[in-house]
Amino acid sequence: MTTHDSTRMPVIGSHKAYVTGSRPDLRVPVRRVHLTDGSAVTLYDTSGPYTDPGVTTDVTRGLPPLRSGWIAERRRDGTPAVTQLAYARRGVVTPEMEFAALRENVDPAFVRDEIAAGRAVLPANVHHPESEPMVIGKHFLVKVNANIGNSAVTSSIDEEVEKMTWATRWGADTIMDLSTGRDIHTTREWVLRNSPVPVGTVPIYQALEKTGGRAEELSWEIYRDTVIEQAEQGVDYMTVHAGVLLRYIPLTARRKTGIVSRGGSIMAAWCLAHHRESFLYTRFEELCEIFRAYDITFSLGDGLRPGSIADANDAAQFAELRTLAELTRTAKAHDVQTMVEGPGHVPMHKIKENVDLQQELCDEAPFYTLGPLTTDVAPGYDHITSGIGAAMIAWWGTAMLCYVTPKEHLGLPDRDDVKTGVITYKIAAHAADLAKGHPGAQVWDDALSDARFAFRWEDQFNLALDPDTARAFHDETLPAEPAKTAHFCSMCGPKFCSMKISRTVMDTYGPEGAEALGDAEIEAGMLAKSREFAEAGNRVYLPLAD
Amino acid sequence: MTTHDSTRMPVIGSHKAYVTGSRPDLRVPVRRVHLTDGSAVTLYDTSGPYTDPGVTTDVTRGLPPLRSGWIAERRRDGTPAVTQLAYARRGVVTPEMEFAALRENVDPAFVRDEIAAGRAVLPANVHHPESEPMVIGKHFLVKVNANIGNSAVTSSIDEEVEKMTWATRWGADTIMDLSTGRDIHTTREWVLRNSPVPVGTVPIYQALEKTGGRAEELSWEIYRDTVIEQAEQGVDYMTVHAGVLLRYIPLTARRKTGIVSRGGSIMAAWCLAHHRESFLYTRFEELCEIFRAYDITFSLGDGLRPGSIADANDAAQFAELRTLAELTRTAKAHDVQTMVEGPGHVPMHKIKENVDLQQELCDEAPFYTLGPLTTDVAPGYDHITSGIGAAMIAWWGTAMLCYVTPKEHLGLPDRDDVKTGVITYKIAAHAADLAKGHPGAQVWDDALSDARFAFRWEDQFNLALDPDTARAFHDETLPAEPAKTAHFCSMCGPKFCSMKISRTVMDTYGPEGAEALGDAEIEAGMLAKSREFAEAGNRVYLPLAD
Repeated sequence: MTTHDSTRMPVIGSHKAYVTGSRPDLRVPVRRVHLTDGSAVTLYDTSGPYTDPGVTTDVTRGLPPLRSGWIAERRRDGTPAVTQLAYARRGVVTPEMEFAALRENVDPAFVRDEIAAGRAVLPANVHHPESEPMVIGKHFLVKVNANIGNSAVTSSIDEEVEKMTWATRWGADTIMDLSTGRDIHTTREWVLRNSPVPVGTVPIYQALEKTGGRAEELSWEIYRDTVIEQAEQGVDYMTVHAGVLLRYIPLTARRKTGIVSRGGSIMAAWCLAHHRESFLYTRFEELCEIFRAYDITFSLGDGLRPGSIADANDAAQFAELRTLAELTRTAKAHDVQTMVEGPGHVPMHKIKENVDLQQELCDEAPFYTLGPLTTDVAPGYDHITSGIGAAMIAWWGTAMLCYVTPKEHLGLPDRDDVKTGVITYKIAAHAADLAKGHPGAQVWDDALSDARFAFRWEDQFNLALDPDTARAFHDETLPAEPAKTAHFCSMCGPKFCSMKISRTVMDTYGPEGAEALGDAEIEAGMLAKSREFAEAGNRVYLPLAD
Repeated sequence: MTTHDSTRMPVIGSHKAYVTGSRPDLRVPVRRVHLTDGSAVTLYDTSGPYTDPGVTTDVTRGLPPLRSGWIAERRRDGTPAVTQLAYARRGVVTPEMEFAALRENVDPAFVRDEIAAGRAVLPANVHHPESEPMVIGKHFLVKVNANIGNSAVTSSIDEEVEKMTWATRWGADTIMDLSTGRDIHTTREWVLRNSPVPVGTVPIYQALEKTGGRAEELSWEIYRDTVIEQAEQGVDYMTVHAGVLLRYIPLTARRKTGIVSRGGSIMAAWCLAHHRESFLYTRFEELCEIFRAYDITFSLGDGLRPGSIADANDAAQFAELRTLAELTRTAKAHDVQTMVEGPGHVPMHKIKENVDLQQELCDEAPFYTLGPLTTDVAPGYDHITSGIGAAMIAWWGTAMLCYVTPKEHLGLPDRDDVKTGVITYKIAAHAADLAKGHPGAQVWDDALSDARFAFRWEDQFNLALDPDTARAFHDETLPAEPAKTAHFCSMCGPKFCSMKISRTVMDTYGPEGAEALGDAEIEAGMLAKSREFAEAGNRVYLPLAD
């Protein structure tokens, strides 16, 4: 393993800080941006200890197990179920809930109540003590998942760990390890021990490796053993395509793009080969018992999601959703936290129906959607086709968005693609937080716009979702250092700046504005101001030195 | 001037073709994609003669003046007004209307009726005969504008002409020349003579140059002469910030980001300096007469648009919109085509109000919006923050979208930025066409998804909005030529492909599907199919050679 300096250093212009909770071992990391006007903005931080210059990390040793003490304390209580849902239902606010609440700026009891109601999940396998607790639910900040994972064709373990660190640096709230090639177990171990965020998997991928890729040779036993193997390693949530029932498969035959979910198609192949109901469905309660023992969260997979605009919201998709609703209730009856996955490829006018139906049928269990992609025609830009749909569906109630990279449909994402995918989805998530009126969301926009209006360039860069790119783009046009404090921007040049003119207007009318004035008062006021303006030399364009 | 091969060659995989209308000189260009299954898909084409290998273009001579004959014919009729609106109101279907109708696959009379109703515009200055007619209105395909233009800081004439060709190659339906530096007149001449799409400008920029950048020295006379100078050159539409009234300026004093429109702030400075109402407003009818003489289309500028999330939908913005509605009616009374510009920075939940109010107040005149940007926090990615808002506002009724590039707020776009901006906005526009149910829009998605499902990689690339990028991304992972015909994709590798499994399902049930079958029939049918499947060797993964 090599150390990657660019990944393991603080984000430029941001400082790692910690907010301490009700006990000294409950220290919540935040990204703090100190502004040149002396104020500071505090932002949510998913990057883990890697961006703390005071912490030395070593991928061969893994991150400090921050939750170990809390898990051990609860174990001494001898509680029957170790899930956050079970604790929440008994009225307990766990340190994990308080940790998540501090990140969200909400009351810890609110986190507990949302989990107890099944409207939120806090994925936290007791065997993954390294993760920093976070909560997924429609009444919290919208979360983003980044997929990593090698495949038979390319990639290496080192690359996957690096991708994970890189994705969380830019804001991934969870990561999914979708490895399908060699060394699945070892790759996952490295990822888990070094991941500050919850890790999800799709166990059927590894189970299929064990049968040499022959779907018909899969069995409940092979699958169960795979789940336990991954549970022991500490996987926090698992995608289970238990809603692909035998009788739904014919519904896909008339589709334009059939079954596009890998897990869904594997189970469809198994059902076809055996002419029996999916073992994921028939043995679902046994699976619940395993998940309960480790506090693994279900992510009920949408194996029949549409793979094209033509197939959106069809009979196969909604038939499966009804089964996922039934399974959600079963899982919750076992005290197992549950979220539900959603599509896929959906044109804009059919997006809202997806989230409304899922919320209604699944008793408001968190919705976790891939995009959706709002058109099929732009391979190479599917982070954008899907970022549009993601922002909309999140506004309407999706709790977590699974990112899509520019390589979707074409190849495996590299480091740049991962960053582009994460940033695009952070934009969608934050746009949704604003539209939902999430308390505190707009503070960030306001701080950046204040900096922009005041020509505080460094503050604008440092507050940006991606400070490096913002700074680099500015420097391409005006690379000289003084430009970053200049009172003009590179679009209009030094003489011709609307922001500058606008400041003059503001200076003319003062901070009190004039909205409450009548027309006559405005006229009188403006006449006086007009004289002042003329006396000051009509200087709309102030000298650059000012 | 140099020739830029990459810009002046056909788009790879596409063929220029022409659809002939009711007269032999009415030849409408299309982009035709021939597929490996023998079929072909016909797409809208904005790229002009540059992508026709049968046409030799020379930027020093300009494009052939394809509309000259039509304009001359009408001049011989001695009609009082030469605007498309005047003809439409008299029931005339001009060759321009028929040309646009053929591009949209609609009845020419429908184009005429939409123009007559003021719900659509066909920007076509009689001095710009080189442009290929197109129509902008909510009942037509959503259009995209790309801004080009040098500034005091950077850029050259050659670069601007090249940017124009490049932008239209990727789908820009109009371009705006926003030059503010030296050689404005000459740059614009080169752009107009070589542009196959309508060209817009903001005349106040050049007028300000004439006063040495001193807004208070602007006058109606300077402005008028500038408009006439540009009208003579052939500018097809002009942004006029005539809605920035003296009494609205104080409404911006309490804003977070004041006045961010350049034109708006120039006029605000003039109003402040003179304490008089804007000459754009007081002399608006004289301006209408000039526009009428050339058939220039008004783009009524939103000089008070919000520059931050905090300022969206505020009193200043909507006060100006009411004035723009008044001016829309005035312009139409003069037979002048008119569209109305819109914001800006608007959070998702406030977008719909913008288009609903504009459509209501302005008698459904075409709305032409910049984004809107749905968050302020992502400088460097504002093509994406705004692409989200653009797709939504277009779905809800915006007729044309002004693109935003990744350099917004940071610097001037280069060639790559222009392409990224155009492609992002074509995605937004097409997503909106799908959501609006525009007839024929989904044919494109269906063709690409068919190709994807059948592993016709070359067809998938050729049908892509950006074939070059789609092909390059695929080749990064699997560069060998045979991979592009292989029956698997690079995400899952050769053995493990959901598309492949899914094809098996489709083969099992046949093209008729099973949606109409009862449960018992499905069970019986599946049992039989299961046996066939087993007898065929349970081959879900077919040999690569097949």
